[in-house]
Amino acid sequence: MATMPALYFDGKLALREMPRPEPAPGEALVHVRLAGVCGTDREVLRGYRDFRGIPGHEFFGEVAGPPDSPLLGQRVVGEINLPCRTCAYCRQGLAKHCEKRRVLGISGKDGTFAHYLTLPEENLHPVPGAVADEAAVFTEPLAAALAVSEAAPESLTQRVLVIGDGVLGLLTAFTLALRGLETHLVGHYREHLDLAEPYGIKTCLEQELAPSAFDLVVEASGSPGGLLLALKRVRPRGTVVLKSTFAGQAPLDPALVVVPEVRLVGSRCGPFPAALRLLERGWLDPRPLISRVFPLSQGVAALDYARQPGVLKVLLHCRDTGA
Amino acid sequence: MATMPALYFDGKLALREMPRPEPAPGEALVHVRLAGVCGTDREVLRGYRDFRGIPGHEFFGEVAGPPDSPLLGQRVVGEINLPCRTCAYCRQGLAKHCEKRRVLGISGKDGTFAHYLTLPEENLHPVPGAVADEAAVFTEPLAAALAVSEAAPESLTQRVLVIGDGVLGLLTAFTLALRGLETHLVGHYREHLDLAEPYGIKTCLEQELAPSAFDLVVEASGSPGGLLLALKRVRPRGTVVLKSTFAGQAPLDPALVVVPEVRLVGSRCGPFPAALRLLERGWLDPRPLISRVFPLSQGVAALDYARQPGVLKVLLHCRDTGA
Repeated sequence: MATMPALYFDGKLALREMPRPEPAPGEALVHVRLAGVCGTDREVLRGYRDFRGIPGHEFFGEVAGPPDSPLLGQRVVGEINLPCRTCAYCRQGLAKHCEKRRVLGISGKDGTFAHYLTLPEENLHPVPGAVADEAAVFTEPLAAALAVSEAAPESLTQRVLVIGDGVLGLLTAFTLALRGLETHLVGHYREHLDLAEPYGIKTCLEQELAPSAFDLVVEASGSPGGLLLALKRVRPRGTVVLKSTFAGQAPLDPALVVVPEVRLVGSRCGPFPAALRLLERGWLDPRPLISRVFPLSQGVAALDYARQPGVLKVLLHCRDTGA
Repeated sequence: MATMPALYFDGKLALREMPRPEPAPGEALVHVRLAGVCGTDREVLRGYRDFRGIPGHEFFGEVAGPPDSPLLGQRVVGEINLPCRTCAYCRQGLAKHCEKRRVLGISGKDGTFAHYLTLPEENLHPVPGAVADEAAVFTEPLAAALAVSEAAPESLTQRVLVIGDGVLGLLTAFTLALRGLETHLVGHYREHLDLAEPYGIKTCLEQELAPSAFDLVVEASGSPGGLLLALKRVRPRGTVVLKSTFAGQAPLDPALVVVPEVRLVGSRCGPFPAALRLLERGWLDPRPLISRVFPLSQGVAALDYARQPGVLKVLLHCRDTGA
């Protein structure tokens, strides 16, 4: 039986030699080239969803099988939800909310921190030739950033504030700026905020934020204080989009929602094709957000490193250099 | 100087003899007939908005001046927000969110627990003759209940759950049922829930609530547990309308909003004319919600009584029987 190296989590994360996965009917075998480390992975390692297996859900790779796959040899990225396709939510077009769904590297399905993974072919999207590997691996978080447009009613006269200068906050601010919106970004790291300057985004450190009300506030800091800041900076009848989760609970004063009649909208995964189009045109280049690339063999150290304050995207290089 | 009895709050609530208010230009003098006690009044007495003065914001009365008022002698109810009419929010049609607004009996303006009050004439709405005094005094909370329709996108295929069998929860459930929606109401008092039966509303005690997901959930319980229950019972991409505030904070697990991409919308005051039309037609009769009527002279006892568990609407009878 063919094996492969992979990061395996069973309460503790370790590099292991694992069986190479066999694609089920309708699935493709993907040779992972690059995997991205995301905040959700850290939550998984803290017990989120009681996941046991190979974590990781962001990847760029090449289809390595089955031999008759129409995608064979193609450069691909892949959507992470594996819905049941039969329940009421699936039939209503809400497949990503299927209650029986498995989620790549998060729930019931081995993920991307390995040399190989399998995914249904319908989850895979070919990557245009113009998109570099290191940009393509950002497709999943970029799609999540684009989901803000679906969650919030659009008006191009809106002033928008994005809270959080991590990867999700930066990508969200980039996509809002590309829509022509007056976009502000507040964070904790001057060197992260500087990455937003080429997009015409107004940036400031949290302590510099002028008292001003925004039509739309996107909470992408993943910290309990982010929600409170969002509610304090949104105008009456404005919208707060919650992009990021974190372990634990944030205190919510209901008067901050009820009295100003604010709209609070949760937002998760987004449209891969739109993200790939932005990358293909070069309108948005996520590569400056890469803090460091580790080989998969140093994956445990990479996930430790990704936890450090001020670190943006950490990538794992998963190319199979063996037989 | 003419005086009147009134409940006055300066950290402590007491019946006092106060100067009868003089209407400012554009204001009418209203002889209060009935005043309603609301949960917000209890919050005011606990320090909400640092209010000092005559509390109370729900009323039915008759216009008693000035002598040239076009409304003189008319039976009226009145909207509670007094916006500045000049700020950016006022000019955008968001007058009820004016940051400089005064609010009847809540902020900067003496309220309804008195024989007389003043309000701008534009805040007053004549009450049709078919509407009894004891129904008209519910116009303000009924309008607030109707505001749910403005906050939540409508689809008549939606299944709706209202949480809370207090006055606001009951009135909200009544108005949703009148829209033709399949309406469920969950609460703590069988005798309150029974008041919803004539509207075809499905009711149950909280411990009886079957596990089922609703398209729209309205939180009108005013308790910290209500928000958690709402988030557990709303379907993915569904809407939770927050109708009620309470002192303190509710713990919010952001994953319950972000992962199912739920929409949480705050909702406050609503349209008086729509409420009066429902009352005029008799499609909705709020009078069974009256727990007890006290004379104003027993107002302190009335507010104590209103705090008891299981009490619905408490009214104060403010008719001036003096000279």
